[in-house]
Amino acid sequence: MSIKANLILFFWVFASFSCLFSSLTVAKSASRFPSSAIRAELAGKNSNKLYKAKYFTQILDHFNFNPKSYHRFQHRYLINETYWGGPKKNSPIFVYTGNEGDIEWFAQNTGFMYDVAPAFEALLVFIEHRFYGKSIPFGGDKDIAYSNASTLGYLTSAQALADYATLIIDLKRNLTAVDAPVVVFGGSYGGMLASWFRLKYPHIAIGALASSAPILNFDNITSPYSFNNIVTRDFRSESENCYKVIKGSWKRIEKAGKRAGGLELLRKSFGICKNYIDADALEGWLQTAFIYTAMTDYPTPSNFLNPLPPYPVKQMCKAIDDPKTGNDTFAKLYGAANVYYNYSGTATCFNLADSSDPHGLDMWGWQACTEMIMPTEGNNKESIFPESQWSYSERAAGCKAYFDVDPRPSWITTEFGGHVNRKKMMSLSMCHAYLTRGVGQQDIYRVLKRYGSNMIFFNGLRDPWSGGGVLKNISKTIVAIVAEQGAHHVDLRFATKEDPKWLRDARQMEISIISKWISQYYHDLAHNF
Amino acid sequence: MSIKANLILFFWVFASFSCLFSSLTVAKSASRFPSSAIRAELAGKNSNKLYKAKYFTQILDHFNFNPKSYHRFQHRYLINETYWGGPKKNSPIFVYTGNEGDIEWFAQNTGFMYDVAPAFEALLVFIEHRFYGKSIPFGGDKDIAYSNASTLGYLTSAQALADYATLIIDLKRNLTAVDAPVVVFGGSYGGMLASWFRLKYPHIAIGALASSAPILNFDNITSPYSFNNIVTRDFRSESENCYKVIKGSWKRIEKAGKRAGGLELLRKSFGICKNYIDADALEGWLQTAFIYTAMTDYPTPSNFLNPLPPYPVKQMCKAIDDPKTGNDTFAKLYGAANVYYNYSGTATCFNLADSSDPHGLDMWGWQACTEMIMPTEGNNKESIFPESQWSYSERAAGCKAYFDVDPRPSWITTEFGGHVNRKKMMSLSMCHAYLTRGVGQQDIYRVLKRYGSNMIFFNGLRDPWSGGGVLKNISKTIVAIVAEQGAHHVDLRFATKEDPKWLRDARQMEISIISKWISQYYHDLAHNF
Repeated sequence: MSIKANLILFFWVFASFSCLFSSLTVAKSASRFPSSAIRAELAGKNSNKLYKAKYFTQILDHFNFNPKSYHRFQHRYLINETYWGGPKKNSPIFVYTGNEGDIEWFAQNTGFMYDVAPAFEALLVFIEHRFYGKSIPFGGDKDIAYSNASTLGYLTSAQALADYATLIIDLKRNLTAVDAPVVVFGGSYGGMLASWFRLKYPHIAIGALASSAPILNFDNITSPYSFNNIVTRDFRSESENCYKVIKGSWKRIEKAGKRAGGLELLRKSFGICKNYIDADALEGWLQTAFIYTAMTDYPTPSNFLNPLPPYPVKQMCKAIDDPKTGNDTFAKLYGAANVYYNYSGTATCFNLADSSDPHGLDMWGWQACTEMIMPTEGNNKESIFPESQWSYSERAAGCKAYFDVDPRPSWITTEFGGHVNRKKMMSLSMCHAYLTRGVGQQDIYRVLKRYGSNMIFFNGLRDPWSGGGVLKNISKTIVAIVAEQGAHHVDLRFATKEDPKWLRDARQMEISIISKWISQYYHDLAHNF
Repeated sequence: MSIKANLILFFWVFASFSCLFSSLTVAKSASRFPSSAIRAELAGKNSNKLYKAKYFTQILDHFNFNPKSYHRFQHRYLINETYWGGPKKNSPIFVYTGNEGDIEWFAQNTGFMYDVAPAFEALLVFIEHRFYGKSIPFGGDKDIAYSNASTLGYLTSAQALADYATLIIDLKRNLTAVDAPVVVFGGSYGGMLASWFRLKYPHIAIGALASSAPILNFDNITSPYSFNNIVTRDFRSESENCYKVIKGSWKRIEKAGKRAGGLELLRKSFGICKNYIDADALEGWLQTAFIYTAMTDYPTPSNFLNPLPPYPVKQMCKAIDDPKTGNDTFAKLYGAANVYYNYSGTATCFNLADSSDPHGLDMWGWQACTEMIMPTEGNNKESIFPESQWSYSERAAGCKAYFDVDPRPSWITTEFGGHVNRKKMMSLSMCHAYLTRGVGQQDIYRVLKRYGSNMIFFNGLRDPWSGGGVLKNISKTIVAIVAEQGAHHVDLRFATKEDPKWLRDARQMEISIISKWISQYYHDLAHNF
């Protein structure tokens, strides 16, 4: 396989599987991650006031006693004591279980924790995930840490959870806050980690708010078509024409790409920079825009991935349905792409060859090649994207070629559970129910009904990831909050005056449930249970 | 440090920390592990009929994706389908989570599972612990697997639990018994593993019977004096004279050892073989006898470690109190030692230099030097053994010298919890309560009261290990069964007609609780919860 093929495969692997990077992008635009990306979301907040960065000396491998496992690295966490009631009052500690990127980015985009901290008098802690941001093993040297499987091998979810356990215990000891209750929070992969942390470390966290955590998106539990089905549904819900124009565009782009002068036409139509163009890359670039816009289809302006207006899917469809563009599909798509890539209006051209990674998400590619085998790339006939099948063997081949690693597709469900029996899927009206093989495990709904407690699974049904989420209450204390109008972890954003009622209600429910956990904890503590 | 000092340290480390090897033995007797050790326990049962051995291809490291982690090894398990109702009836699967030795030995000594299997129509499975018996990584070659930290590093409890999860899932799939409920059983370290398995893998096991599992014997939760306090109490409960004679003997032996001709006197007094004698070794040999006799102080004849009469502690004290030996302390001790080392009456002399290991328990030394830091070696003023303090730094130094490894004394409580707050210890009348530092973790009783379900902790209070056990009910479904007269996992032995009422009652309670778990499971399954 040529180096170029490898590289394309890598980008495919990288771009396809991250909780944030799910499309078939093989290139990215210059304006996609402007360095100012996070400013709008912060709405004037000063990151110096949001947190202080600290470091903990972390062990490389918790589950092994090889000499190499004893290597240490500097593990970053962010802390804010402004609102904390302190150790004497046993005031709570709210911990964000960091996901696949720079923890500052997640801290700055998890306004909910800041919004509720004063009322709870909570200490806020955001812990970075190993191998991301500044928490890089092997002396902090990414060139070494990312070089191959023998160093990247330590990048796993179980190690990350054990990192969090170790760090929290040490932090509480240092703060003489042994009896302070810890609640964990997380969104997306961070939400998966929060729920798994409560499952595996109940002696450390009294509860977990897992927002948009697709913990069922593994091992054929949910359908590989659900992700793009939801993207499709989002656009179709705005207008049938919008859906049809997008759905019809892919063949036109392919055809144009094959015609003489066609690529130049595409370049002009979409304002692509002169350095590089290719029909596949252009399609990937557009699909990225549609997918991320669906994920971040928030009711207020946002800047999580790119600066976006409120209800950006509606804005895209508005551009597509604009009568001014008549029958010109490319002009319509260009208008839609501008909503995602150029809402600030400053881009002069779009660079398809750009692969900058300002939030340091790159190593999700490794995770997606080892344990995070989350099938989302299937497209059925109705899909807004070209029809395609999810293929595990393609994923595995790509991973072998790029990282020289064999995925372990059943590991996550072995370690954390997650299987749901087929009948249950139907009874839960999980339209994305797919195929549950004989898996040798118990149905996770049945298991958690009799085991565990204190978890909230939030999902917005406009979020493509919601197809892999927990959408029904499991027990009195393991509950699902489902927002029909919600997008990817919308509940975790900073509150604004413009937030719609359903969003305020969802957050209020979360606050009320978390309050109950803490009250019960204080009651148990006082009564020496 | 000289090689000899190293070797002594090794034996000290090895012999001191195993759930089965807790004394300061530096040498062992020839008759200690006769090859017929297991026959009496089996009471005529044929091991061919007890189980068939099978193998599963297991991965070397579940929590790491280094190329080396992908190595495979043949993982042995024993299976008995005689009583199984089969997959169509969803008849249960009873799994023994193997501990630190050859799994055949544990299978042959866990008669309880055979005794109850017919009524439950249960499939019996005994899974061997990695690095023991025939489940040796690195091509099954012990010389390689045991050679140093880079290979032994993979011998950890978390890896063993993940082995069990992986194997059970695969086995159920192969048996098309996906919906069959799994209950895990274990005694001693195997009991710790059973309870931890239920904690960490509730999606695989519906409940756990953890017999004599000292899960609190870590990280200063319980006292390092409790173990020998209980040994002391056991002997003292038989007769004050018995206790005093033993307690007074150590100085006499030491003095004798220092006198000219004293070692020869000791050799003659105790029937020690001519190859080797040393006062320290003799003391270790005697302490081993007292400790193991206390652990296996069963009400009926046994052959778990050595062939023993019913109530062997009573028999030892009878020998000591025997008026025929007058004031001859050595003759009294020799009589007691014969109960443990020579009940069959076939020994011609006792070999203090023997270090044979017929049940393959050797590698507990490694576990005791990495994560299984279970302080049991303290002796207070009242102890039947010479006064001594538990010293972590001595353990650590020994481990460094022998294995070149640094223990991680807080890892087990980080991963599995276990801390109990001091006030709770008092209220639980845990006389062995020691010192609970600021640990950054929640009280395990409080945690499990609100989390988890379906665990039984059996403890016999005559068992020295009971000091580190769970002795009080935690919730309606996490219960403690405490037998005042019980020794180490006495409940798991084959039933006999001579079993006293308290033992039959304890087993009946276990059976009744396990039945409830299974009934509830079938109910949930039928109602598609």
